[in-house]
Amino acid sequence: MTTLSIDLNCDMGESFGAWSMGHDLEILPLVSSANIACGFHAGDPGTMRKTVAAAIGNGVALGAHPGLPDLMGFGRRNMAITPQQAYDLVVVQVGAMAATAASQGARLHHVKAHGALYNMAVADPSLARALAQAVRDVDASLVFYALASSTMAQIAADVGLTVAHEVFADRTYQPDGSLTPRSQPNAMIEDPEVSIRQVLRMVQEGRVTAVDGSDVEVRADTLCIHGDQPGAVVFAKTIRDAFAAAGIDVRPVTRESLTA
Amino acid sequence: MTTLSIDLNCDMGESFGAWSMGHDLEILPLVSSANIACGFHAGDPGTMRKTVAAAIGNGVALGAHPGLPDLMGFGRRNMAITPQQAYDLVVVQVGAMAATAASQGARLHHVKAHGALYNMAVADPSLARALAQAVRDVDASLVFYALASSTMAQIAADVGLTVAHEVFADRTYQPDGSLTPRSQPNAMIEDPEVSIRQVLRMVQEGRVTAVDGSDVEVRADTLCIHGDQPGAVVFAKTIRDAFAAAGIDVRPVTRESLTA
Amino acid sequence: MTTLSIDLNCDMGESFGAWSMGHDLEILPLVSSANIACGFHAGDPGTMRKTVAAAIGNGVALGAHPGLPDLMGFGRRNMAITPQQAYDLVVVQVGAMAATAASQGARLHHVKAHGALYNMAVADPSLARALAQAVRDVDASLVFYALASSTMAQIAADVGLTVAHEVFADRTYQPDGSLTPRSQPNAMIEDPEVSIRQVLRMVQEGRVTAVDGSDVEVRADTLCIHGDQPGAVVFAKTIRDAFAAAGIDVRPVTRESLTA
Amino acid sequence: MTTLSIDLNCDMGESFGAWSMGHDLEILPLVSSANIACGFHAGDPGTMRKTVAAAIGNGVALGAHPGLPDLMGFGRRNMAITPQQAYDLVVVQVGAMAATAASQGARLHHVKAHGALYNMAVADPSLARALAQAVRDVDASLVFYALASSTMAQIAADVGLTVAHEVFADRTYQPDGSLTPRSQPNAMIEDPEVSIRQVLRMVQEGRVTAVDGSDVEVRADTLCIHGDQPGAVVFAKTIRDAFAAAGIDVRPVTRESLTA
Repeated sequence: MTTLSIDLNCDMGESFGAWSMGHDLEILPLVSSANIACGFHAGDPGTMRKTVAAAIGNGVALGAHPGLPDLMGFGRRNMAITPQQAYDLVVVQVGAMAATAASQGARLHHVKAHGALYNMAVADPSLARALAQAVRDVDASLVFYALASSTMAQIAADVGLTVAHEVFADRTYQPDGSLTPRSQPNAMIEDPEVSIRQVLRMVQEGRVTAVDGSDVEVRADTLCIHGDQPGAVVFAKTIRDAFAAAGIDVRPVTRESLTA
Repeated sequence: MTTLSIDLNCDMGESFGAWSMGHDLEILPLVSSANIACGFHAGDPGTMRKTVAAAIGNGVALGAHPGLPDLMGFGRRNMAITPQQAYDLVVVQVGAMAATAASQGARLHHVKAHGALYNMAVADPSLARALAQAVRDVDASLVFYALASSTMAQIAADVGLTVAHEVFADRTYQPDGSLTPRSQPNAMIEDPEVSIRQVLRMVQEGRVTAVDGSDVEVRADTLCIHGDQPGAVVFAKTIRDAFAAAGIDVRPVTRESLTA
Repeated sequence: MTTLSIDLNCDMGESFGAWSMGHDLEILPLVSSANIACGFHAGDPGTMRKTVAAAIGNGVALGAHPGLPDLMGFGRRNMAITPQQAYDLVVVQVGAMAATAASQGARLHHVKAHGALYNMAVADPSLARALAQAVRDVDASLVFYALASSTMAQIAADVGLTVAHEVFADRTYQPDGSLTPRSQPNAMIEDPEVSIRQVLRMVQEGRVTAVDGSDVEVRADTLCIHGDQPGAVVFAKTIRDAFAAAGIDVRPVTRESLTA
Repeated sequence: MTTLSIDLNCDMGESFGAWSMGHDLEILPLVSSANIACGFHAGDPGTMRKTVAAAIGNGVALGAHPGLPDLMGFGRRNMAITPQQAYDLVVVQVGAMAATAASQGARLHHVKAHGALYNMAVADPSLARALAQAVRDVDASLVFYALASSTMAQIAADVGLTVAHEVFADRTYQPDGSLTPRSQPNAMIEDPEVSIRQVLRMVQEGRVTAVDGSDVEVRADTLCIHGDQPGAVVFAKTIRDAFAAAGIDVRPVTRESLTA
């Protein structure tokens, strides 16, 4: 009998120069993979180095977290970039992070786009393809994190990448498996217990209850923990306890497990 | 009998976004290695990609050209950075360029620091060591370009890197083998014929006549061509003709040739 | 009898650090007002100072040309900024240019938004209002340049600003007075003679022939000259000659003339 | 009998985009003047607006706090800029802050250079002169904050500006009235009580005891509070209490008081 497992991923290294953000050192012992900012939306070179070192020290898988070139907006504002520009942005940011890992004797494990770049790629197949091709062209062994059951995930698989389907504990789902847009009142799950039940069911049954009460299939390879929110550390501990009680391992995705 | 050879290197890819700089497409057929800006002093991701493609198309060896984080000053203004900051800056810039090369099926060949970062490393052994260690830690097979006969070159060799000693056609030399500072009136060689005679002698005899008339040993592995100056293309052609007439090959340095 | 007049405006000062753009010194003698980049999409502080000095030297009215915070994209990529962010961006950029003018004993005359910021404000009344309020709150005597007959122009007038309606020589017009989107094949006027006839008629009759052959009213206070295009200088001279032949003065708009 | 008074100034508005820094809202009620970052080392346009609003709300005098163009280094790293570049940097930053104040119906009161720019101007008269000239050329009524008894202060006065001499509570003084360099072990005063005694004496007697025990004259117009340090709020309260007990008013400097 196979043990069920889930990857817990968290955005990290989003400080910049003298400015600090997040609770990386408290979150790192609780997650299995880190998405580390690469300098365009956050993450100066020193922060990149220190975050990689801390992730290695915690045995956490290293991921590049490329974003839009918008320090002032923290990469959260949509920008009208072309697919070629998206490709180029990802190539250099993945490279910067890969070298940071290599300089410490480690290897990059995955890539997850940040903020508006992630959201834009979910909504626009040409951007999703550009991101996936950039990752593949730099290092085809990298795992591509994408919204579970999305066109973005399908495109990345078509491009030849191993894809980790990402689910969210604090977001509700539509009958078609997409996330309820944040503009709608019922987009967020406020009750931690409801969050945890949703996640457990996604991992154990591969299903989630949509907002209309219907049951939707969803593949849950990795769960996103929002590290910059108040209560993030407490929530991460709670969810780890719930996983432990349910006999679910927390560990990084692997190409073998994802393509099994 | 071995054929004498020299590498001709030139800074490239120093455009940024809508702004164009240099004459890369005209210079590329004339040089054997390109030092390509990595985004900090110049070179947006799209320019990096296009410059790498053009260099590959011309059979020119690919180099990373990391600089200070100073777009406004084009990386030419000294900044009081720590060795750790210098190390970090080089790691991410070399990584960004290595990924750009990898995405096009190519490999990085060398690293040459840009502008003030180069000059600061020539003057400050702790910065020279930081730069060399960064390159070695990212990829120990990369060739490190350093001022011929400098402490910087010695430190990079001590760190374990293969070093290409770089000479200049348009600069005069001091009796101790260092360049005459630009602040002095006789720092520059204005006469192209004198420049070419100096370079030929450095390649053929390993010697240069210093400003006081004395003879100094100098190792000339690679010659810097300034691509952004008026007359750069003409000068590059002239010097290639002079090398051809003297039976000197123009080709990239190799680890084998440098450590022979 | 009143002499007809038109303002010729041109974007200026769009160099950045070591990178040069445009032909400012050749264009300045031909125009009556300059829209000078303020540092966010182009224009470092030194370029701002030199461009203001050159404009003063040519008796050209000084305008601030605020843009999006996107050096890499030259302010030409739409960004999802809020009206508050648009307001803030304009305040600081107008202030930076006003101080540059003041330091040379001159005063700012107008504000014209750049690139994507201009286009976004044409399309989104909330952004148009934010821009106009920012200008008014910094200095209510500044003239606001806006697309002729646009909602943006109306909003700026409602906010209390004097508005200069801007027309284009090289763009075709729709029956409702808007510009034909560039995505349509007949958006641009390639024939300089057609351009000039269109402009003369706009100034003399206040009318333009739309793409469907119908006649549309348009108010032409200022004409945009694209300084960064090949042939810009030649076109500017040609159009000035046409104005001279038609007895139309080229001079900056004034609050008095615009509100007459 | 005139009441003794002192200005308490503090750096403010040094957040940037999503990154927060300092305890502005807690410090503002305790100080009389704010040095507000202008976007080059910190302070995006939104932060500038909000900080100006908060300062106005607390009746605190508004100052521009221009810095080097070095977000990554928070303007704390010396850069080899020319006096002309220093002049240009100050003009645009003062202008951006002046417009932010004007848009809220307020006026700028003073200018204090930030970090490395301040330190470089203390050490280099040509930079001090450039800074002072920039401030004067933008608005000659602005008060210039400068290290007490420094050449920088003298130069600003020679240029025609009203100068506020700034003293430090937590730094020791040399027999010539300069600050003990931080590189020396006795540069900092760790004991708050010693700090307060030093400040009281500077205000009441215009004298300070140097590290060699000798007595030095010092003019104390304004005292710098370091807002980003732990204990800053507590220290500010303590020192205000000490001033109150000694009958010393805390209020902004004025041109009248400084030139009396």
